[in-house]
Amino acid sequence: METQIVPLGTASAIPTTERHLASTALWRKGRLLLFDCGEGTQMRLLQSGLNRARLDALFLTHHHGDHFYGTMGVISTLALLHREEPLVVVGPTGTEEAVRSMPGLANDWLPFDVEYRELPEDFPPQTVYETDEFSVAARPVEHRVPCMGFRFVEKPRPGHLDAEKARELGATEHEHLRALKRGERVAFENGHAIAPEEVLGPERPGVSFAYVMDTNPCEAGRVLAEGVDLLLHEATFAEDQEERSGKTGHSTAREAARVAEDAGAGRLLLSHFSARYDTPAPLVEEAQEIFPNTAAAEELKRYVLDPRDKEAVSA
Amino acid sequence: METQIVPLGTASAIPTTERHLASTALWRKGRLLLFDCGEGTQMRLLQSGLNRARLDALFLTHHHGDHFYGTMGVISTLALLHREEPLVVVGPTGTEEAVRSMPGLANDWLPFDVEYRELPEDFPPQTVYETDEFSVAARPVEHRVPCMGFRFVEKPRPGHLDAEKARELGATEHEHLRALKRGERVAFENGHAIAPEEVLGPERPGVSFAYVMDTNPCEAGRVLAEGVDLLLHEATFAEDQEERSGKTGHSTAREAARVAEDAGAGRLLLSHFSARYDTPAPLVEEAQEIFPNTAAAEELKRYVLDPRDKEAVSA
Repeated sequence: METQIVPLGTASAIPTTERHLASTALWRKGRLLLFDCGEGTQMRLLQSGLNRARLDALFLTHHHGDHFYGTMGVISTLALLHREEPLVVVGPTGTEEAVRSMPGLANDWLPFDVEYRELPEDFPPQTVYETDEFSVAARPVEHRVPCMGFRFVEKPRPGHLDAEKARELGATEHEHLRALKRGERVAFENGHAIAPEEVLGPERPGVSFAYVMDTNPCEAGRVLAEGVDLLLHEATFAEDQEERSGKTGHSTAREAARVAEDAGAGRLLLSHFSARYDTPAPLVEEAQEIFPNTAAAEELKRYVLDPRDKEAVSA
Repeated sequence: METQIVPLGTASAIPTTERHLASTALWRKGRLLLFDCGEGTQMRLLQSGLNRARLDALFLTHHHGDHFYGTMGVISTLALLHREEPLVVVGPTGTEEAVRSMPGLANDWLPFDVEYRELPEDFPPQTVYETDEFSVAARPVEHRVPCMGFRFVEKPRPGHLDAEKARELGATEHEHLRALKRGERVAFENGHAIAPEEVLGPERPGVSFAYVMDTNPCEAGRVLAEGVDLLLHEATFAEDQEERSGKTGHSTAREAARVAEDAGAGRLLLSHFSARYDTPAPLVEEAQEIFPNTAAAEELKRYVLDPRDKEAVSA
């Protein structure tokens, strides 16, 4: 039941020998979501051990190449693997046209449907993907070109079942227990009934994750990150490049930390490091002065979304 | 003065954890040519240690994604590195349109010119790139979509100078020796002259290389490979998949070996291996039965073009 975040690339703009282009995987119950899809994402997925065939949806923040040029390869490879399930691609207006203009993707030869959900510039905040168990919302952020951030939230799950108490109240069959677990009322022929709240502990909140890339530090980033267990925020520059950062529509590590702090996030991972930094260590130090639970996103490392991170901060 | 061939990716269609998508570098006198440009080529270039900024020309065999989708990233990264020198891109008709349809490459913001040299289907064999020191020729080969192979040939160089003899004949100044080395006649005020052939050894042939990808074994492949020092030929399949290989427009390792043998190539490197083969060892064995000087192209290994390979074969 763990939900894992796996950074696949932590470079900005151009790759280095150490860092690959932007993409982050979310792995949950054997299914995969991808946030951004820079060139090489399909290779990084392979190297991560996450099964690329399990991809349900791809969320593209914007159309700069370092976040987007891997999209064609992912779709092409899924086609070569004879995928049949549909794939959702969320991105700015023009995403479908750009993908389909590539040789090999122009014709309708794909063995699966790609459902493009395109958002215009300055769209109103909205849910862009939803299942019975979680949702992903998007908001415009502040970059040089239309760009959006994402917020993944699991729906609350029913509390733990007190099975002993349920049996005492007459729920002797397995199906009774299963119904109560799902939060359903169980009625017996003799008129007796058990309400789920009699035997269930408090509702358990789901885990949450915010993905805030290429942007000046902004209110939308803060709202996306509000109370999340893990915030992955861009930190292209350190404080010494604050002016350049502001002008190019990026954030410094310190600014990312302030967003995490203001949003009450549980944990902050920095990413999207400029090639000028051999190591992100100075960026992390700078951010930790404001938000101690900060680390540099490590490529291919699996970060488990854990509500206890948030509790640790608010304690 | 060495000319090196560096395979950057040896997979076909989809990458594996071991093998990357098709691209091969040619490194000569600190300048770079690329043959094919599958997704991830710019990262592999970085990892190879070859300076991506020194790229002069890119030769695309065809428009399947595994040979082409890295083109946008290479151009984009060269732009971000503030390149000013022009870049030549040789490829099938539609190459420019496809590249420029990508977000970020659509507008004329590139700080350098890209000169697209596009060839229609079934074009006549021709030189597609030429400098004072070498040329690259192209010919259509036989794949499912328009596809071409390439032949790189260095021009012959003047023979070695016999400096002692030149001095005896009166070439006492450095500039005299340099002129003779270049094959120029040196005349003195007293009417005496030295002809270059008096002091130069026999003309030295340049090295040569053929790049023959996605194709059924064909006459064009053989002509491209005629007498080259090194032939890099696709070998997507082993003999057990001969029928599939034929139908999909590919070659088996044995077929590639026959092309090398018929062409009198010095050395054969196999590449473009189907993901079904964990290791190319059986393909190499199969090819060696016909053409012993065969190896599987190893990614990032540097192969020096050496006329002695050819001499060894013809001896």
